[in-house]
Amino acid sequence: MSLDDVLNRIDADLQTSIDRLMELLRIPSISTDPAYDAQVDQAADWLVADLQTIGIAAEKRKTAGHPMVVGHIGEDSNAPHVLFYGHYDVQPVDPLNLWTRDPFDPAIEETENGPVIRGRGSSDDKGQLMTFVEACRAWKAVHGSLPCRITFFFEGEEESGSPSLVPFLRENAAELKADLALVCDTAMVSRGVPSIASQLRGMLKDEFTIIGPRIDLHSGHYGGPGLNPLRELSKIVASFYDDETGRVAVEGFYEGVHEVPAEQLKQWETCGFDEDDYLKSVGYSQPHGEKGYSTLEQQWARPTLEVNGLWGGYNGAGSKTVIPSQAHCKITCRLVGDMDPDALRDKIRKHVEDRLSPDAKIEWDNDLEGSPASVMNLDRPEFEAARGALSDEWGREAVFTGMGGSIPVVGYFNTELGLDSMLVGFANEDDAIHSPNEKYDVKSFHKGIRSWARILDALTR
Amino acid sequence: MSLDDVLNRIDADLQTSIDRLMELLRIPSISTDPAYDAQVDQAADWLVADLQTIGIAAEKRKTAGHPMVVGHIGEDSNAPHVLFYGHYDVQPVDPLNLWTRDPFDPAIEETENGPVIRGRGSSDDKGQLMTFVEACRAWKAVHGSLPCRITFFFEGEEESGSPSLVPFLRENAAELKADLALVCDTAMVSRGVPSIASQLRGMLKDEFTIIGPRIDLHSGHYGGPGLNPLRELSKIVASFYDDETGRVAVEGFYEGVHEVPAEQLKQWETCGFDEDDYLKSVGYSQPHGEKGYSTLEQQWARPTLEVNGLWGGYNGAGSKTVIPSQAHCKITCRLVGDMDPDALRDKIRKHVEDRLSPDAKIEWDNDLEGSPASVMNLDRPEFEAARGALSDEWGREAVFTGMGGSIPVVGYFNTELGLDSMLVGFANEDDAIHSPNEKYDVKSFHKGIRSWARILDALTR
Repeated sequence: MSLDDVLNRIDADLQTSIDRLMELLRIPSISTDPAYDAQVDQAADWLVADLQTIGIAAEKRKTAGHPMVVGHIGEDSNAPHVLFYGHYDVQPVDPLNLWTRDPFDPAIEETENGPVIRGRGSSDDKGQLMTFVEACRAWKAVHGSLPCRITFFFEGEEESGSPSLVPFLRENAAELKADLALVCDTAMVSRGVPSIASQLRGMLKDEFTIIGPRIDLHSGHYGGPGLNPLRELSKIVASFYDDETGRVAVEGFYEGVHEVPAEQLKQWETCGFDEDDYLKSVGYSQPHGEKGYSTLEQQWARPTLEVNGLWGGYNGAGSKTVIPSQAHCKITCRLVGDMDPDALRDKIRKHVEDRLSPDAKIEWDNDLEGSPASVMNLDRPEFEAARGALSDEWGREAVFTGMGGSIPVVGYFNTELGLDSMLVGFANEDDAIHSPNEKYDVKSFHKGIRSWARILDALTR
Repeated sequence: MSLDDVLNRIDADLQTSIDRLMELLRIPSISTDPAYDAQVDQAADWLVADLQTIGIAAEKRKTAGHPMVVGHIGEDSNAPHVLFYGHYDVQPVDPLNLWTRDPFDPAIEETENGPVIRGRGSSDDKGQLMTFVEACRAWKAVHGSLPCRITFFFEGEEESGSPSLVPFLRENAAELKADLALVCDTAMVSRGVPSIASQLRGMLKDEFTIIGPRIDLHSGHYGGPGLNPLRELSKIVASFYDDETGRVAVEGFYEGVHEVPAEQLKQWETCGFDEDDYLKSVGYSQPHGEKGYSTLEQQWARPTLEVNGLWGGYNGAGSKTVIPSQAHCKITCRLVGDMDPDALRDKIRKHVEDRLSPDAKIEWDNDLEGSPASVMNLDRPEFEAARGALSDEWGREAVFTGMGGSIPVVGYFNTELGLDSMLVGFANEDDAIHSPNEKYDVKSFHKGIRSWARILDALTR
């Protein structure tokens, strides 16, 4: 029995692997909206049952929020112990009218880049999570056992700020400790270029409401003397930015940000990132971030302050001559280097409050979390082993890349469990994760499964 | 039979008059939302039937939009001919959660200022409209006929820009011509101070959408290089204003604006307007308009550019790390003096488009109307007659006031029918029209009916 037998088995079972993924995709496990609590739970149950069919001792574990799924196999082995992490919750689906199909009725669709699995969660992260599960299933079917000790750890709150994650890691630290964490929740830098993420941006979330008049006012009776919180909010959001330089204008925002070393920058710029495609595919003719930094630097190595939602007043059909009482704003920051989320939150709040007009009041949401940026420990031999395995599978050299997104669990594995992480993912930039019409290339799914089989082989050879 | 008999009859019938108003208030005739088309129609039918019970030849008249109600009485009389205007449509009710009761289940509620009729449309304008109808009903019951020729003209599109009004006036000009228009859709300058509006602000409505990326984007993958239309929108809205002076910063915005003559200003400042109450009742400690102008001038005689609705991105529970594709903005301007709505629309659009970043696209709503400001013809003898009648009813001198609101029909009566208007209304500033928990003082309703009986008497004596 050899690696080739496992790879052949993966090829032969591809359709049933896809069918299983489709089952999981049909469960609308939107973690951020309490209306879907039962469905999030249902997705956890589905995973527990599926892991058990591979002979993995899996359980659903309660938390204060959505449950965790934890499974173990090979506990009597002397081989290395890896912990595999993925998340089974998904993003909300609005605006629903822009979807070409029901987001939770997934299907294979043909595209110019080959067949794709269309549906919410196909790429982020159910499809990616299942690449690892399917690799283990094939390995077990061929060899009767897995090549190392593996702990499976699936979260149901990744898309809603992971409020239960740190408490769960602390309470179950002994059980979850391993030699290395494997995470499949990232993208390839460009189509067909296997990628290992070497750094992630951190995240800070905040939300505020500006309150002007006590009640909604008639813009005839109060237009002029009346303070309009929508104008107030626009003034404040506009003040977040320096339009000349593209920089964030909050005092102290860039504390802890470091320039990318020239050598690393050179690596990035030759790693296969297709800037033109990245921009044009979404309708941009140029990058819009900080002047003096490349598109890749803006995305991977520079911090942001982004408005994700902004609303107030009348938004129905026709018009309404109202001065609304309230205006609302949701923001997130992407953090890099040594930026401290808690210190940054204070700076942003001060910036906002310093600019409020008399009679304007503000309320903050104090339930939102932050997490710092992460840099991987590339000195560990597993990284080079995985890079070889990926290069073999994809027929071109695998690369170490930055990442614009945030995967807070990587930081918590480090601080709570003393665990390094290795991030390998097979998503493409055009997967439309967090957007309407999310998809996952069938090629990503298929070669992703094969990649994990090769990585397991390389790590235990 | 005398005026006193009519006033006594009004007093005796007050409860049944209130009951009739309640019936009309129960019909949710929201004209701006197509979901309520049938209810708008139902309100027109109710009014036709009610006018007919007074012996008025009333009909529902079709338009391209919501119907008009037209009624005539006393056509064989040689007495003066007045046209009475009111509107039977109402504002939307959102935010519904701020209402203390179902907006369309009206009731009498006790307050520190006496009993009020609580419900959408109680003040704007069903309650005010019915003051005139009830005055006519009482007069007819006592005298068997009305003291002059009266045309009743009720509109169902006042809250949605009156798209059918001008075509209808043109097509029915001969039928609608009269000596003077009476309009009951305005407020008293202060509680208990009878008021005749001598000037109204005009109105310009516009709406635009800023489009950034082709689809919603993940703020990790595109945060930095990505153009965010919410930031773009905030920048543009902030640029509408000069925060130092409180002026609108759109080039040419103040063309056609005239300063208020010193004598008129002096009249206004002594007309009983309670600035302190006006501001504090809605939570303001100071006026927030143009520096160098009094609160009354800001409200009555200065133009505004107001944001009535602004939205984009995620506004549900929790957070969503999205760079949205679109951001939306609804604006209205209040116009004074000789400001030209069409010219102003061009100036505002140019201001916005001049400030768009590369890759930002814009779409305008081209279906929204504008109307210039109006000044009443106070030289007509009817104004002095009405002022005397109002002073008698309210026990204090009636005043000529400005008005912050816009009643476009006054301009159209002038341009299309050559008709002057007299605006008498009994609303109070705290009626919360266009807001949750709209109300109309029972005193306004009762003394409003009595006021119209006195005015009809004074105009025909």
